[in-house]
Amino acid sequence: MVATKERILHTSTELFGRQGFAGTGMNQIVAEAQAALGSIYHFFPGGKEQLCEEAIRTSGQIYLHLIEAVIDTAPDVTEGVRDFFTGAGAHLVATDYADACPIATIALEVASTNDELRRATADVFELWVAAASDRLETAGIPPHTARELSLFALAALEGAFVLSQASRSIEAIEAAGTNVVACIRAALS
Amino acid sequence: MVATKERILHTSTELFGRQGFAGTGMNQIVAEAQAALGSIYHFFPGGKEQLCEEAIRTSGQIYLHLIEAVIDTAPDVTEGVRDFFTGAGAHLVATDYADACPIATIALEVASTNDELRRATADVFELWVAAASDRLETAGIPPHTARELSLFALAALEGAFVLSQASRSIEAIEAAGTNVVACIRAALS
Repeated sequence: MVATKERILHTSTELFGRQGFAGTGMNQIVAEAQAALGSIYHFFPGGKEQLCEEAIRTSGQIYLHLIEAVIDTAPDVTEGVRDFFTGAGAHLVATDYADACPIATIALEVASTNDELRRATADVFELWVAAASDRLETAGIPPHTARELSLFALAALEGAFVLSQASRSIEAIEAAGTNVVACIRAALS
Repeated sequence: MVATKERILHTSTELFGRQGFAGTGMNQIVAEAQAALGSIYHFFPGGKEQLCEEAIRTSGQIYLHLIEAVIDTAPDVTEGVRDFFTGAGAHLVATDYADACPIATIALEVASTNDELRRATADVFELWVAAASDRLETAGIPPHTARELSLFALAALEGAFVLSQASRSIEAIEAAGTNVVACIRAALS
């Protein structure tokens, strides 16, 4: 049972991330998750909207752990942030430019159309910003600047994903990574 | 006749920008543009896909002129870029966080699902990057750095729109603007 629920959630996360909320139908989720429509409604009685909200919050947690792991295993926070941009670019190429941020497509789509889902995306972005900000503070950057740099770094990465997926080139991710790292270095010195 | 075509295109641009490609139906375009379905297919025989491609390319030109106008009327390129971020934030607030980048929602949505529309979004981003890059070069920044900074500045703005629309706060746009301006200033000095 848990396996079925997780399979449905995993498939939904991938489809919502690649095609958006409106572009992903319940029939496609049923087919790709190899689950019955009845079992989807059993696990997610709120239907597509509940499924999407859980997909947003679940991938939010997964990527939170990724941010923490990448930064915390690097020699310092500057190298950690650089590694994160490098890894994001490599993953984009490895997935033929399909897997970037799991929630950005939905975030833009629901910003003006679905307040419940908009709040879920805002909560996830806030988790990520807080995790980065904590680490910049620990490295010695004052709280206000740490938060500003974290918001800016996440913005640069999210936007670089948009440009890189459109152009099928990681030039924008490299350009963003170089400049974000330079700004963090300047704040530390 | 021209007025009808322009009204259809204007309405489509707004709807695609706010709701995405999959989330916008021809019936809604018909209703909001106050046009007959027959006249939409008369002007856009390729249907929704052609309409979306023309909406992408048309708003690409409009925003290109905006980028040029904002930067060229500022005392210098650094102030021009700062004005662009400030203006973007003010416009977002004025439209209750509805109008950000006219093509980013579609760009993320079609990146893996529609190659024709993906190319149209890539062409538009390239136009904007080239316009910014020209101006940074004119200000004395070497071509490679000017292009890198322009890609990075556009990425930071696009991502800041994602975060600001999700959180209904322009904190991310202000954070991105401050750091982008600092990077351009550093390249000029």
